[in-house]
Amino acid sequence: MGDQEGEIILRPVGFIRSFYARPEFAPRQGAYSDDLSRVVIYPEFAHLLEGIERHERLIILYLFHQGRAEPSPGAFAMRTPHRPNPIGLTVVKLQERRENVLWVRGLDAVDGSPVLDVKPFVREIDCPEG
Amino acid sequence: MGDQEGEIILRPVGFIRSFYARPEFAPRQGAYSDDLSRVVIYPEFAHLLEGIERHERLIILYLFHQGRAEPSPGAFAMRTPHRPNPIGLTVVKLQERRENVLWVRGLDAVDGSPVLDVKPFVREIDCPEG
Repeated sequence: MGDQEGEIILRPVGFIRSFYARPEFAPRQGAYSDDLSRVVIYPEFAHLLEGIERHERLIILYLFHQGRAEPSPGAFAMRTPHRPNPIGLTVVKLQERRENVLWVRGLDAVDGSPVLDVKPFVREIDCPEG
Repeated sequence: MGDQEGEIILRPVGFIRSFYARPEFAPRQGAYSDDLSRVVIYPEFAHLLEGIERHERLIILYLFHQGRAEPSPGAFAMRTPHRPNPIGLTVVKLQERRENVLWVRGLDAVDGSPVLDVKPFVREIDCPEG
């Protein structure tokens, strides 16, 4: 990661393999789908997955890399992919890990989406009461 | 946002004003704190906040911009700030919006953290059952 004239430079840690070749084929939100997708982590980051199997659910941050458009007024009050920084966030169920590949359910990302981060989902902090 | 030789170029949409000048002063997770923080959105993006008041809770994506270190094995199974792409994610309570400034509770970000995105928290998709 770098920082230059206000720019933030990130780099994919992997990519998504899914049944959704284009945004219009993807479910509006992954929570409504039971399809299996794969989160393929590049081998150089595979050691960061150590111990991930103890988490039933994960948060996947990825890039909306297709169908770019200007954000509409109110975009921050919506989950639209058309945002200044087109980062997608989906809570998924970890079905299985095979080395550097996570098999997950509930992901709504388009095939080939670059992955930015994988985090454990922690109910106590990610699901506030009320 | 650009994409060049695998690089992903993002740009802050605002910054955080909080009581936490350094990472060691911040609560480990915002959910454990009731302090008020401000999410200051740059004026050019203020129109994207339209309608945000109807959401009681928001997801703030920001950059861990202090205390960079190499990620440790298992970083993807933890919420450590030391990650390949140091993106922080916190669910906050929206207390009040004043033009381009969101007053929120439960944010654990250090003062000055660049903001990448603001999303509405949607219980049905962000808090899976079980």
